Parts: sequence; structure tokens; C-alpha cells
Amino acid sequence: MFAIFVATIVAFIFPPLPLGALGMIAMCVTALTGVVKIGDLLVGAFGNTTVWLVVSAFLFAKGLIKTGLGRRIAYTLINAIGDNSLKVAYALAASDLIIAPATPSNTARAGGVLFPVVKSLCLAYDSSPGPTARRIGSYLMQSVFQGNAVTSAMFMTAMAANPLVAELASKALGVQISWGLWALAACVPGLVSLLVIPYFLYKVYPPELKDTPEIKKLAATELAKMGPTTKAEKLMAGIFCLALLLWATQTINKLDATLVALSCIGLMLFTSVLEWQDITEEKAAWDTMFWLGSLVSLSGFLSKLGFIPWFAKMAGAMVAGINWIPALLVLAAIYLYAHYGFASLTAHVTAMYVAFATICVAAGAPKYLVVLILAYFSNLCANLTHYATGPAPIYFGAGYVDQGTWWKLGFVVSLINMVIWIGIGGAWWKVLNLW
Amino acid sequence: MFAIFVATIVAFIFPPLPLGALGMIAMCVTALTGVVKIGDLLVGAFGNTTVWLVVSAFLFAKGLIKTGLGRRIAYTLINAIGDNSLKVAYALAASDLIIAPATPSNTARAGGVLFPVVKSLCLAYDSSPGPTARRIGSYLMQSVFQGNAVTSAMFMTAMAANPLVAELASKALGVQISWGLWALAACVPGLVSLLVIPYFLYKVYPPELKDTPEIKKLAATELAKMGPTTKAEKLMAGIFCLALLLWATQTINKLDATLVALSCIGLMLFTSVLEWQDITEEKAAWDTMFWLGSLVSLSGFLSKLGFIPWFAKMAGAMVAGINWIPALLVLAAIYLYAHYGFASLTAHVTAMYVAFATICVAAGAPKYLVVLILAYFSNLCANLTHYATGPAPIYFGAGYVDQGTWWKLGFVVSLINMVIWIGIGGAWWKVLNLW
Repeated sequence: MFAIFVATIVAFIFPPLPLGALGMIAMCVTALTGVVKIGDLLVGAFGNTTVWLVVSAFLFAKGLIKTGLGRRIAYTLINAIGDNSLKVAYALAASDLIIAPATPSNTARAGGVLFPVVKSLCLAYDSSPGPTARRIGSYLMQSVFQGNAVTSAMFMTAMAANPLVAELASKALGVQISWGLWALAACVPGLVSLLVIPYFLYKVYPPELKDTPEIKKLAATELAKMGPTTKAEKLMAGIFCLALLLWATQTINKLDATLVALSCIGLMLFTSVLEWQDITEEKAAWDTMFWLGSLVSLSGFLSKLGFIPWFAKMAGAMVAGINWIPALLVLAAIYLYAHYGFASLTAHVTAMYVAFATICVAAGAPKYLVVLILAYFSNLCANLTHYATGPAPIYFGAGYVDQGTWWKLGFVVSLINMVIWIGIGGAWWKVLNLW
Repeated sequence: MFAIFVATIVAFIFPPLPLGALGMIAMCVTALTGVVKIGDLLVGAFGNTTVWLVVSAFLFAKGLIKTGLGRRIAYTLINAIGDNSLKVAYALAASDLIIAPATPSNTARAGGVLFPVVKSLCLAYDSSPGPTARRIGSYLMQSVFQGNAVTSAMFMTAMAANPLVAELASKALGVQISWGLWALAACVPGLVSLLVIPYFLYKVYPPELKDTPEIKKLAATELAKMGPTTKAEKLMAGIFCLALLLWATQTINKLDATLVALSCIGLMLFTSVLEWQDITEEKAAWDTMFWLGSLVSLSGFLSKLGFIPWFAKMAGAMVAGINWIPALLVLAAIYLYAHYGFASLTAHVTAMYVAFATICVAAGAPKYLVVLILAYFSNLCANLTHYATGPAPIYFGAGYVDQGTWWKLGFVVSLINMVIWIGIGGAWWKVLNLW
């Protein structure tokens, strides 16, 4: 399983065929070699709710774009604050942050809510995949995606596996992390990250468009040209707000984020905001379904068949007996970078959190420090690859950033995040008297 | 669950939206009402190997059509025997019969092997969905589909659930049905059905083209025009034969029919016979994935949640205490027509076979008679609806036959099959001294 998984990742890095085809072939190889039955692989790939949440996000975005609502939101945003592309990035990060505490699915937030807005913004600036990508699209896509990993880390309810982390910390180590403590401990390093990262990307991966005051006028003209909102736009806006409300109140209404997304697409079909044809011809959704589905399935079996637990044990043995400070630093780094082998944050947490936290504590590291660092790193690792978490394939699939750049920026930003969250975070947690 | 299922079937009969959209909405309703979790529904729908075998058959057909191989086979066939559309139907039924004993997946046989040939034949005769459908396409599609239900019944290895039937008969009633006995008992009524049904359809649902001698010349000219076979055609032919060989030797090689199909599509991609784009833009496959997947999932839960077992018990209670002959006839008819509520032959067998067989035997019916009639009816019910079994959505999805006609012909042919298999079959089994 590990050999096939590594071969698949290598093939994804130097693709001899489109990713969807590679994913399908990888599943066939896994079944043909007798490692996992094809039926189980298909369940892991296409019966997975996260995969369908990602597919739904593509269809959601289609509705926002087709009705023109996304374009209207984008122009309104540009009209209000679009005199500088860095400000646009901050505005988007702020939107993400505002809805984060109430949206337990980072895919719903970055994919369902922000992605159509970013996409429309890019199109409004005439920045499409290809020669015009770097105009503003590449920068905004990276900035929002990187910011989403940070906002996911900041609240217990901002990412689906965060409550699981809290439960595991309580069960395995007896450390109780309340919603408030999680947010209080995260707010300082989180806000620093959200300020630093868009600025850092603005410097090392700059958009061609920087000061853009004349675009504000264009936006006003375009808004005037679009006239009053249409019935389809109003319906789309209503369904969009309903989805947002249901996602935001998930802890109360108990509705699965994927169910909300599919039901809202059902509503769009019912109200003729979307035609069924719009869905069956949304090629990008089917391509993503194949490659994300196959990776989620393969990485799931990598864990289920025992490779990940074995890996966790091996890594732990390496640092046993040494001082807790280097032990914690090394294990935290291994924990974070192990996400190169995962296509799901939940799978990562499930497979590695308890083992790593236990070893760190056994090495003498303060419990709260261990629990919090690994909890936040469970989210911050989401920026490493284009398959790391639900939003990754959506933003990568938009086609504005090539794979090499994606991985390079992900790695560099992960170093910045480690410095901020361990350095400033550690100091802040000392102030809070947590260690 | 039953209420939602019935509402979905009614909506499928009078569709207010495309079937795929209805299926998706039905799953959302099932999850929103708390009947089944969305995650379980998605597993049942999109993690199902039969659903993926059907999707694969669409992609397989694409390869045969895109390379021109399907067209070449069709023209060769027309050139050889195409002077009468009834003969074409018999030739196709014979092909189905020849590969049936060795192809345990009726979907692979009718969908993967015959469908592309039938489709190409129709196109060669300029018969497409719409005004030209009745020229020859509607007739051939119905004839092959109806014949497939018969060939499925004729061998223990001609349909995936047949070995399950044999096992259930052995376990529940102690009746051992060998491969040879199954085929021997089926050969007389089976051959009669295969002779009668194409002729019956030729009379009540006639093709506009009957004697077509001039078309043979046209076929010869077209074959000459096509020139020698291309590299893509040869590759496609090789992959096609490989799939056929692997499907035919499934009992030896133990490879799942879906795995064979997906692997062969992988080979087509690898050898550039198909581009990945051909797959993502195959709208019909994604539409079918939604509506077939959702029905398979819903009917699966109809059974799992206990409705089907309850229904089986109720029907049994109705005939308790009466003479075994009417009891067997009534129960066999209920068993067959209960398939209106199933989207899978396997699900039908799993849910109803044991209960119905047990009640018939308890009413005093001879064991072999009961076991065989219900075994064959487990296949003959496949002709009732456009969602009855894997090939149904493929042939229905081709668009040559409208839903009303499909159901009417299915019902009438089911009556003919019942007369043949109970009447002639019963007499034949008396000759064989089975009762």
C-alpha cells in the first residue's frame, strides 16, 4: 500500500497522465495486487462525504458564477476596497475569519463560500489560468488558501476534526481544552499569521496588479451596467445565505455539511437557478472526484492497513530519551510534515495525534503545550499540498498556481507558521500560564 | 423510507426534473428526514461496484465508438447477415447467448460488450434517438435488452446473483443445484424465449426497416472506405478481448467485473485510445451515476430498514393454507413483479428469495420446482423497468425507447416469459423427473 501510495504521489508530481486518470489507475493497481478490494476502494473514494462536499463546492460555485451573483459581490467588494490587491487579500482573510468560528467545515468555508467570490474577483480583473494568472489570480488564490489553514486552527469549531482533537486530548492525556481556551490560546499567533502571510506572499509571489485605483471606477461602471439584481441572483443569494446559516449553526442543527451542500444544489435545480446539464457537464467536478476520491481512499487504507501507526511508532522511537524541548520540536515538525502523506486532516488526526502527543508528554513536555501545538499543527499542515484538505483541490483545480510553486510556497509558509505558532504562541501561552 | 421510495419512483415516471436531479434530491430528503445518514446513502450510491460497472460500460462504449471499431464490427455484421432486421436481432441474441455462460455480469455482457455494437449498428442505419429512433434502433435496443434477461437466467454463471440463489437454495431448503442442472433445466424454456421474444417484438413494436438488402451493399462500401484497421482500433480490440477474457474467466481469475472494466479503461488511457477529457465530458455517465446510484442506495435501505422482509411476510400470509399450485403461481408472480421496487437483481434475491421459497415449500410445492422457478424469475424480472438491473439504464439511457413504451413492453414480455417458463419449463422439468 505504501509503495503504491508513494508511486501515486510521485506520479502526481510528474504527471504522465491527468491526475484523475492516475488516481483511477492507482486504485486499479491497489485492487489488482490484492492489497484492498475494489469495492472497498470505491467506498473509500466515492462514498466519502468530504469528496462529495468538494464536488458540491464546484457546483455551488457554478451557481454563483452562472447567475452573476458572484460577479456582483466581487464588483461590490472591488468598488469598496479594491484600490490595492494586498487590501483585497486582507479583506478576504477577514471574511474567512469572521465566518470561521461558526463553520466547522473548512471546505464549506473556503470552497463553498470564498472560492466563488475569489474566482469572480479574478475574472473581473481579467485574470484567468494561463498568461494572465499572475495578474492577481495566483496571488489571491494562494493568499486565501494559506489564510484558511490559519483560520481553521483558530477555533475548535472551524475545522471538522478539531473537536476530535479536543476529545483525544481529553481521553488520552486528561487535558481538557474548552472552546474558549482553544480560541484564547490561538488568537495571538493566529492574528499574527493572518497579518504576516498575505503580506509575505505579496512580497515573494507578487500580483502584477498592485495599486489599482482606476479599477474601482470600472467596478462602479460594471455594477451600474449589471442593473438591478435578477430573480435568479436573488434566489441564489437566498440559497447561499441558507447554506451559510446551516453550515454556521451545524452544532445546533446537526446537519452534515455535505447534506446541506447537496440539498442547496437540489434547491438550485428546483428553482431553475441551475439546470441539470450544468452539473453533468461540470468536467472539473468529475476530474476532482476521481483524483481526490482515489487519494482519500488510498491514504485511508494506508492508515487502516497499519502503515501510519507503524510510522508514528518509528518516529517516536527516534526521539525517545532526549530532552523534551528538541523532542517536542522534532515530533511536532514530523507531525506537520507527515501531512505530505495525507489527503484529509481528519485521517491525519485520527492516525497520528494520540501517538505523537503521548510520546511528547512521556518525554517530559508540558501537557498543554503538547496538546495545543499538535492541535494547531493539525490545521496548519493543510497548506502543504494540493490534496492536503478539501479546499486544496478546489483552489489548485482553479488552475492559477502550478504544482511546483504550490508546494514551494506551502513549505515556506509552513516554516513561517511554525516560527509564529511555536515562538509567539509559546510566549503567549507562558503569559496565559499554560506551561 | 417506503414513502420516499414510492415518491421517487412516481417522480421517475412523471419526471418534473431530470432523473439525476430527482435521485440527488431523493437522497437529500431521506437524509433530511433522518431516515438514513447522508454518509451511508453516499456509500450505497457511489461506493457501489454495480453503479461503477455501469459507469465503466458507458466509457467502454465510448472507446469502441471513438476508435471506429464498433462501427467496423457493425458494418461487418450488416455485411454478413443484415438483409433483415429480425435476423440482426437473432444474431445479437445468439452473441449474447454464446458469451453468457462465461460472463457472470449481465451488465458487462449487455452493457460492455453488446451495447456499443448495437449503438454503432443503429448509427450505421442512421437511426438516432428522436424521429429516426423507430427506424431500427428502438427495436434492436428492446430486443437485446429483453434477450439479456433470458440469457441471464439460462446459466448459473450468467448473472452475478445466480450463484447466491444456488447457495440460498442449498442452505435454506437443502436443494443442491449444480451448474449442469441449472443449464439443463433452463435450456428448453430459454431457447423458446430467445426465439419468441425477438419475433414478438418484431410484430408488436416493429422496426420501420425490415428487408434491407440494399443496406448490405452500403455496408460493404463503407467497410472499403474505412480502409485497414488503425492502431487505435487494434489496441481497442485487444483491450476489448482482454476484458471479455477476464470477464469470461471470472470464476478462475477472481477479478471483480468492475475492477476489470476500470483497469481496461486505465489501459485505454495509458495507450491514448481514450483521453481523460473523453471521460470527464461523458455527461450520460454522470447523469446515470446519480440516478442509478441513488436508486440502488434507496432500495438497499428499503431492504435493510426492514420494509422488504415485512412485505415478503405479508405476501406469504396471504396465500397460507391454500393449495400449493395457486400458492406457487401467486407467490412467483409477486416475486417477479416485486422487482418494480428494486434497482438491483442481487438486492431482490437477497431480500426475497429465501422467504418466498420457504413459504412455497411449506405450502406443499415440490422443492425443485420452487427453487428453479424463483431462480429463473430472479433474472426474468430484469426486463420490467429501466432501472431493474445494470443494463437497463444503459439501454434506456441510449434514448431510443420512451419510458411508457419501455414499461409496457416489459410487462407484456414478462407475461410471455411466465407462460413459457412455467408452462413449457414445467413440462420439461416433469420430463427431467424433477417433480
